[in-house]
Amino acid sequence: MKVKNPQELMKLAIEKARDGIKRGQTPFGAAIARKNKSGGYDVISVEHNEVWDKTDITEHAEINAIRKACARLGKVKLTNCIIASTTEPCPMCFSAIHWAGVKEIYYGTNISDAQKAKFSELTISNQQMKKLGKSPVKIHPDYMRKEAEKLFNDWVKNPKKKTY
Amino acid sequence: MKVKNPQELMKLAIEKARDGIKRGQTPFGAAIARKNKSGGYDVISVEHNEVWDKTDITEHAEINAIRKACARLGKVKLTNCIIASTTEPCPMCFSAIHWAGVKEIYYGTNISDAQKAKFSELTISNQQMKKLGKSPVKIHPDYMRKEAEKLFNDWVKNPKKKTY
Repeated sequence: MKVKNPQELMKLAIEKARDGIKRGQTPFGAAIARKNKSGGYDVISVEHNEVWDKTDITEHAEINAIRKACARLGKVKLTNCIIASTTEPCPMCFSAIHWAGVKEIYYGTNISDAQKAKFSELTISNQQMKKLGKSPVKIHPDYMRKEAEKLFNDWVKNPKKKTY
Repeated sequence: MKVKNPQELMKLAIEKARDGIKRGQTPFGAAIARKNKSGGYDVISVEHNEVWDKTDITEHAEINAIRKACARLGKVKLTNCIIASTTEPCPMCFSAIHWAGVKEIYYGTNISDAQKAKFSELTISNQQMKKLGKSPVKIHPDYMRKEAEKLFNDWVKNPKKKTY
């Protein structure tokens, strides 16, 4: 599949997060795409969080998307790739993005939004991680925040929701 | 399997890292154990880094050990568990340890040792991550450092070694 821009990629991540919510998962989606020669992007992976589904605390949407992308490309470095994540990647996912050499992160809501919803977050922002760890990754915060927020707020209202 | 103390657990992690090196993997091992009622520990998982083997940039020894432990215990939180890691967990692994609710980290060599060996580390120490993220995890640095260092130094001399 191809997308024209990061905005279309974020839409895929949001749709996938919505699928995840329907399946009883937490409201997080992520999508990875690689720049192609026509000036657009080839979509490599689109995943939602599967912590509960897989009984695996590391199965955040971004880790899931990175693992699938490595498998699909047959590489451990995701050169010329960008990631769209419905919420700011947690420090685990930010670090995985760094290790994979992903160039740019686009994200909607913030770690503090997830913390307010009772996820036991390490409250270290992507900007702090980048600065302290001297990572070359470019960060685009508050990207399509309203759409990402809606998804998150809908989930927060669900009485059956499970955090971790 | 049972171990009496963190020292015995670290020995298992070091042995496993040695196995990994023989299999062409990077020199990192990790082992997770849960406190039992006899004052010792039940070993839950012992893994080495499998980034090259699995073509998965997230397959660090600690992530690998946490995933296996979640699967074996059927839980996403590793309550009353400790982890022994031959090298200081990178920020990705430190954050996964936090998410899993592991109580204590014992580690041998440091992130800076791995950086000197040309791994593209985010140079944020476990102490910094703990402080910034307000994590309750206890950290025991330089634990059996000499033994862990030997393993690492042997690998560094290998002309066929591959970093990432």
